[in-house]
Amino acid sequence: MAVLKWTLLGSVLSNLLLVLGSSLFCGGIANYTKERPFDRKQSDVNLSLLLLGALCYIFALVFRRSAIVGDGNAGGGAALSLSRSCSIVMLAAYFGCLLFQLKTHRRLFEPPEDEADGDDDAVSDTPVIGFASAFAWLVGMTAVVAVLSDYVVTTIEAASESWGMSVSFVSVILLPFVGNAAEHAAAIIFAFKNKIDITLGITLGSSTQISMFVVPLSVIVAWIKGIHMDLGFELLETGSLVMSILVTAFTLQDGTWHYMKGFVLLLCYVVIGASFFILRPSLDQANGINWGVKTIPMKSVKA
Amino acid sequence: MAVLKWTLLGSVLSNLLLVLGSSLFCGGIANYTKERPFDRKQSDVNLSLLLLGALCYIFALVFRRSAIVGDGNAGGGAALSLSRSCSIVMLAAYFGCLLFQLKTHRRLFEPPEDEADGDDDAVSDTPVIGFASAFAWLVGMTAVVAVLSDYVVTTIEAASESWGMSVSFVSVILLPFVGNAAEHAAAIIFAFKNKIDITLGITLGSSTQISMFVVPLSVIVAWIKGIHMDLGFELLETGSLVMSILVTAFTLQDGTWHYMKGFVLLLCYVVIGASFFILRPSLDQANGINWGVKTIPMKSVKA
Amino acid sequence: MAVLKWTLLGSVLSNLLLVLGSSLFCGGIANYTKERPFDRKQSDVNLSLLLLGALCYIFALVFRRSAIVGDGNAGGGAALSLSRSCSIVMLAAYFGCLLFQLKTHRRLFEPPEDEADGDDDAVSDTPVIGFASAFAWLVGMTAVVAVLSDYVVTTIEAASESWGMSVSFVSVILLPFVGNAAEHAAAIIFAFKNKIDITLGITLGSSTQISMFVVPLSVIVAWIKGIHMDLGFELLETGSLVMSILVTAFTLQDGTWHYMKGFVLLLCYVVIGASFFILRPSLDQANGINWGVKTIPMKSVKA
Repeated sequence: MAVLKWTLLGSVLSNLLLVLGSSLFCGGIANYTKERPFDRKQSDVNLSLLLLGALCYIFALVFRRSAIVGDGNAGGGAALSLSRSCSIVMLAAYFGCLLFQLKTHRRLFEPPEDEADGDDDAVSDTPVIGFASAFAWLVGMTAVVAVLSDYVVTTIEAASESWGMSVSFVSVILLPFVGNAAEHAAAIIFAFKNKIDITLGITLGSSTQISMFVVPLSVIVAWIKGIHMDLGFELLETGSLVMSILVTAFTLQDGTWHYMKGFVLLLCYVVIGASFFILRPSLDQANGINWGVKTIPMKSVKA
Repeated sequence: MAVLKWTLLGSVLSNLLLVLGSSLFCGGIANYTKERPFDRKQSDVNLSLLLLGALCYIFALVFRRSAIVGDGNAGGGAALSLSRSCSIVMLAAYFGCLLFQLKTHRRLFEPPEDEADGDDDAVSDTPVIGFASAFAWLVGMTAVVAVLSDYVVTTIEAASESWGMSVSFVSVILLPFVGNAAEHAAAIIFAFKNKIDITLGITLGSSTQISMFVVPLSVIVAWIKGIHMDLGFELLETGSLVMSILVTAFTLQDGTWHYMKGFVLLLCYVVIGASFFILRPSLDQANGINWGVKTIPMKSVKA
Repeated sequence: MAVLKWTLLGSVLSNLLLVLGSSLFCGGIANYTKERPFDRKQSDVNLSLLLLGALCYIFALVFRRSAIVGDGNAGGGAALSLSRSCSIVMLAAYFGCLLFQLKTHRRLFEPPEDEADGDDDAVSDTPVIGFASAFAWLVGMTAVVAVLSDYVVTTIEAASESWGMSVSFVSVILLPFVGNAAEHAAAIIFAFKNKIDITLGITLGSSTQISMFVVPLSVIVAWIKGIHMDLGFELLETGSLVMSILVTAFTLQDGTWHYMKGFVLLLCYVVIGASFFILRPSLDQANGINWGVKTIPMKSVKA
C-alpha cells in the first residue's frame, strides 16, 4: 500500500516539477527571444484544486501523526474517518472542476485556434476511439494492472535491495520517471513548438487528476472493500507535495514564462529527489519512514 | 477562555471560507456568463494584514508548544510575552490599515458610484446613528454580552455533551454559523446582485477585524486585568487559519472570479469542519485539545 | 558556527523585511499621491530563487530534526549529505540566475533610462575599480574578516551576556542592523526618489545573494575543509525565513506598491525581532536553541 501511495505521489511531483520544469526550460531555451504569456485561467483552476488537495493531505498528516503519537485506537479511527471525508470532498471538487471546464466555462478553455487543448487526456481521446471500446480498454487495462501490480511491488523491493536504494526513492522518483516518459516527451515537444498552454494542460491536468481523483478514489474503494487505507503521507512526502504546489503556484502566477522558471522547478525536483535518495534503506526498514518529528510510544501503527 | 478563542477563530474561518465561498459560488452560478473582475486593492490590503496575523499566530504556537513540552515556567512566560508583543503589533497594523483605507488612500477604495462600500461596518454606520448613541449602544451591548457570555459557555458545554459533539466543533463551526447569519445573507445578496466588491469588503473586512483587532485586544485587556491569556491556538486551529488565509489569498490573487473559486473555498470549509467534527470529545476532555505532535512531559499547562 | 549562520540569516531577514519595508514605507509616505507600479520581472526571478531556497532550508530542518530525535549517526549523516546536495543545487540556481539576468534576458532588467539598476552590487562595481584591484580588495578583505571574525564571536557572546540578551538576538537582529546600515540608507534614499526598482534590486538582490550563494558556499567550503556544517537552521529561524519569503512574495505579487505594504513588512520584522528577543538566554544556554517541538532523547547533537 505504501508503494502505491508513493508511486502516485511521485507521479504528481514529477508532473508538477520535472515535466513542467523541463518543458519550460527546454521551450524557454529553444526560443528565448522574449517573455511569453500563457493562459492563466486553466492553471489557476488546476492550482486552486491542488491547494485544496494540499489542505486535505496536511490535515490527514496531522491526524495520522496524532494517531501514531498518543491516542492509540481513537486517533487511528479519527485519521481514517478524516481521510474518507476528505476523499469525498476531493472527488466532489474534481467533478465540480470537470463540470466547470467542460460545461459551463468551456469557452474559457478553448483556444482561439481549433486545437484540442488542456482537457484531461481521457476526454480528448473519446472522439477517437468511441465509448464502448474505451470502456473495454479500461476494464482490460485494469485487469492487466491488477495482475502486474503484485509483481511491481515485489520487483521494486528486490530492485531497491540489490541497488542499495530505499524503496521510497525507487517508488517516488524512478518509477514515475519511467511511467510518465510518454507524457514527458509530449509536454516538451509542445513546449518546443511554443504551445505552452497544451504543456500546462498536460502537466497540471494529470497532477490534478492523480491527486484529486485517483488517490481519493483509491481510499474510497479501499473503504468499500473494508481495507484501512488513509490519505496520509508522512512528513517528508507531504512537505514535498505542499512545497511543490506552492512553488508551482508562485511560478505560474504572473502569466508569463521563461526558461529560468523551468530551471527553478527542475532544481526543486532535484532537491526532492536527493532527499528521498539520502533517506537510507536502514531508516526505511526500521519503521516504514515513520520518522521526522518522531516521538516515543510507537505502538507499531501500520502504514 | 478556550471557548472564546474558538468562537473568534470560527468567525474568521467562516467569513473567509464559508461566507466568501458561498457568495462567490451563488453569485457565480446566478450570472455565470463570463469571468468578472473585482477590485484587488481592497482584498490585497486585507490579505496582507491577515498574512501578518498568520505569522503572529504561528509564532505564538511555536512558543506555546515549547512551553508545553519542555521548559516549564520559562517557556510559558515567553509565550505570554510574545503574545502580548504580537498583539500590540497587530493592533498597530490594524490602525495603520484603517488610516490607510479611510484617510490617505480613501480614493482607492471608493467605488465610481457613490455607494458606501468595503469600510468596516462600524464606520459606515456612524452617520446614521451619531457618535453619542453609538457609544451608548456599545456600552450597553458590552454589558449585555458580558452577562450572557457565561451562559453561552455553560450552554455550549451542555449542548456539546448532549449532542455528542466536541466543544471545539460547536464553538468553531456551529456558533459562528448562527452568529454570522446576517452577514452571510448580506454577502450572498450582494454577490447575486453582482456587487462582489461589497461582498469582499464585508467578508475580508470582518475577518481582518476579528483576527487583527478583537483577538489582540482581548489579549491586551486580559493583560491589564492580570489574566494569563495568550494568542496561541493549537496545531489544528492554527493550521486551519493559515491554510484558509493562503487559499483565500491564492484564490483572489488574479482579480477575477467565477463560481469554481467559491466552490473550492466552500470545500475547504467542509474539510476544516469535518476535522473539528471528527476530533472526538474523548480526545477533547483528555487534555483540552493539546494533541497533534504531542510529546510526553505534559506538566498540566492550562489553555 | 551558529553565530555565523545567525548573522547570515539576520542579513536576509533584515534585507527582506526591515530594509525593503522601511523603504516602501518611507517612499510611500513621502509621495503617496497614488499607487505606483514597479518592475515585477526582477522581483519574480529573485523571489522564485528564494522560494527554492526556502524548500532547501525546510528539508534541511526536517533531516536535522530527524537526526536529533531518533536515529543517531545515520540521521546526522543524512542531514549532512542533504545539506551538501542542496548547497550544490542552490549554487547552480544562483549561477543560472546570474546568467539569466546578465546574459540571455539582460534586456528585461535594463531600465528605459541608462541607470545601473538591480544587478548585484559586485557586478555593477566592476567597471569602477577594474578586475585586478577588485580581486586584491577581495583577498585583502577576506583576510581582515577572517582575523576579525573570532573577535566578533567573542564580542557577541560577551555583549549578549552583559546586556542580558540572547546570543541569537544579537546575531540575528542587532548585528545585521549595523552591518547593513549603508545598504539600508541607499535603499531608502532611492525609495524617496521614487526609484523603487533600484531599491528592490538592492534588497532582493542581496537577500538572494546571501541565502543562495554565501550560505551554500560556506557549506561547500566547510565540506572541503572537512568541517561538519549543515544548512539547517532551527525551527524558529527556518519559520521566520520561510514566512518572510512568503509575506514578501505576496506583498510584491501585484506589481504596485504603497506605504501600507512597507508598514506590514516592517511589523513582520518587529514580530520576528520580538521572538528572538523573548527567547531567553536561559533557554539558549540550556541546549543551543534546540527547542520548539522538542523531544526527549537529546543525545547531545552539536549545532
